[in-house]
Amino acid sequence: MPLPRQVFIAVIGAGGVGKCFLSQLQHLASNLSRSPAAPTYLSLIWLSTSKKAIYYADYKSLNNWEAELQASNTPPLPPQQLAEYLVKAPGKVVLVDNTSNQDVAESYPLFLKKGISIVTPNKKAFSSSYQLWTDIFSAASNGAGAGGYVFHESSVGAGLPVISTLKELVETGDQVTKIEGVFSGTMSFLFNSFQPTSGGGGKFSAEVKTAKDKGFTEPDPRDDLNGLDVARKLTILARLAGLKVESPTSFPVQSLIPKELESCSSGDEFLARLPEFDGQMDELKAAAEKEGKVVRFVGSVDVPAGAVKVGLEKFDKSHPIAALKGSDNIIAFYTKRYGDNPLIIQGAGAGGDVTAMGVTGDLIKVLRLLH
Amino acid sequence: MPLPRQVFIAVIGAGGVGKCFLSQLQHLASNLSRSPAAPTYLSLIWLSTSKKAIYYADYKSLNNWEAELQASNTPPLPPQQLAEYLVKAPGKVVLVDNTSNQDVAESYPLFLKKGISIVTPNKKAFSSSYQLWTDIFSAASNGAGAGGYVFHESSVGAGLPVISTLKELVETGDQVTKIEGVFSGTMSFLFNSFQPTSGGGGKFSAEVKTAKDKGFTEPDPRDDLNGLDVARKLTILARLAGLKVESPTSFPVQSLIPKELESCSSGDEFLARLPEFDGQMDELKAAAEKEGKVVRFVGSVDVPAGAVKVGLEKFDKSHPIAALKGSDNIIAFYTKRYGDNPLIIQGAGAGGDVTAMGVTGDLIKVLRLLH
Repeated sequence: MPLPRQVFIAVIGAGGVGKCFLSQLQHLASNLSRSPAAPTYLSLIWLSTSKKAIYYADYKSLNNWEAELQASNTPPLPPQQLAEYLVKAPGKVVLVDNTSNQDVAESYPLFLKKGISIVTPNKKAFSSSYQLWTDIFSAASNGAGAGGYVFHESSVGAGLPVISTLKELVETGDQVTKIEGVFSGTMSFLFNSFQPTSGGGGKFSAEVKTAKDKGFTEPDPRDDLNGLDVARKLTILARLAGLKVESPTSFPVQSLIPKELESCSSGDEFLARLPEFDGQMDELKAAAEKEGKVVRFVGSVDVPAGAVKVGLEKFDKSHPIAALKGSDNIIAFYTKRYGDNPLIIQGAGAGGDVTAMGVTGDLIKVLRLLH
Repeated sequence: MPLPRQVFIAVIGAGGVGKCFLSQLQHLASNLSRSPAAPTYLSLIWLSTSKKAIYYADYKSLNNWEAELQASNTPPLPPQQLAEYLVKAPGKVVLVDNTSNQDVAESYPLFLKKGISIVTPNKKAFSSSYQLWTDIFSAASNGAGAGGYVFHESSVGAGLPVISTLKELVETGDQVTKIEGVFSGTMSFLFNSFQPTSGGGGKFSAEVKTAKDKGFTEPDPRDDLNGLDVARKLTILARLAGLKVESPTSFPVQSLIPKELESCSSGDEFLARLPEFDGQMDELKAAAEKEGKVVRFVGSVDVPAGAVKVGLEKFDKSHPIAALKGSDNIIAFYTKRYGDNPLIIQGAGAGGDVTAMGVTGDLIKVLRLLH
């Protein structure tokens, strides 16, 4: 590939995904610098967490970021100033946002307009107001603008090729009729354990506790059970399929938090009281079982009807959604070309390494475009 | 996307895939010409079948290709002369090879060296001798060369994102340990009908006849049953995963053609005599059933062991490969990052429209790279 000789990389976020990305970046940089056809040098010039940042006025590479970050007392620059710093770098810049921060997301148009490209797993940028979506893609070169490029494969299904596949279906002129799937690793694990296709399964509250102990939930499990994470992913897919979805709260989203527990003051209090509602969940399970089905937490987009929804549905035990394992995601695209049998993508949809892989893959795409 | 203003398209092949591609090309050309950011004009300047061609000395667009092709008496140019014609076009050229022709495949290095990009579903180019593979990628810009770009998504799994996904796994530094799947729509249909997971199923010879009647086989079904088509696809995937596979006959490939019927003078004679061997196939079926399994025709690449093989294997009825429907393909990537649960891609892996979709998707990729 004719790649540019030097590209500057700025990274926001050094948590689970951020650390995995930085490790993949090192591998990629080493490979690209040894490319026989057109060596490219990637230079990390900015790294920040919510508390501190490391960077140099002369854009020197951060070759020892782990120690430098630990030693740093410099607070991160606010977005406007960061953009001003990056735009003066002596070459093209890609900003990698590995946070789920709303403020950073809202500053994307600012960066893009200055010609800075963005790759990110941050769902908030693409699933908040429709105005922000429009602002981003009217600025980006892979939208209607002339600024930087923006890619966000990992905002749905982590490294699974979900967004690139949907884009290709649309761009090549297929008609997507329905998108359906399990979009949350947490929800996948919960329901695969609560009602396995082989029968059995534990009490719902016990499965939530197990999921939390295994690190599959947010610190407060209500942040998974309210359905908002899935709603955000459906918002992104629906918009890519051409629907003007105003926000992730503008369509029906079923919360699995009992009304009575919404006001619990802590996740621990919530977990302690959740068993009171196991009877309700067992009823749902029994009703599904009676029809030879299982209950799963899914999201779907009915494109011709313009309808998006998120919540519990019953599936035949032989259905691919019912047969899912562990905490895997599954996404089925029903289209005119694919007919009755959808195009299906399945696999881990969460985790630092696979999420970072989607980000690194996007970075490679941007590097190819930045001749 | 900053796209080029005008790109010239040359198409070889106007059969099943070719006709679908030309229809998708029209849709794409119309969309790109109306792009607000950077309109691009695609101009079809060459169309040929094995018998005739249409093109103009002044590179005029073929706006009415169906009628023009029918009226043409011009034989197609041989590859060398075609390359000389195309390289003088007043702009970048993409050659779309919608054939499965070996001679055309062997001329790819010639076109690429002249800066002509290639998109194609033609398996032969990437699954014949390792020397041809090397010649192609040492000439291409998305290899080690400086010539045109080459993309071939539809050479495995038609429009399913199989090749792009494997490339991304490798490029982002994941370790692919195993690739396994059902890579032939014909074989998928045959075994899903011969031994459904729900029990029952017909005699093998009867299912082959049904598949032929439905148009799911080559005119002579032996061209599917010999396993070579699947072996070619496995050769491509193994090479992309880093193995130097010499040819599709350099690893074990199980043929489903009984030795005694290899010499039948016609497909019809073969079909007439195939029932003599139903007993053998029923034995395989019964043996699998005894273990609670089903028989499927699969291909696999064991990357660390450098081993590729194609043939019959037994799978638990709950295995995704066993549960496949209709004539769908399924491809599972086992990698270090994805752990025990592989990344799975599933859906129609044959058919004019979905194969053409992979080609059109590749064309869009090339257009983005041809600034």
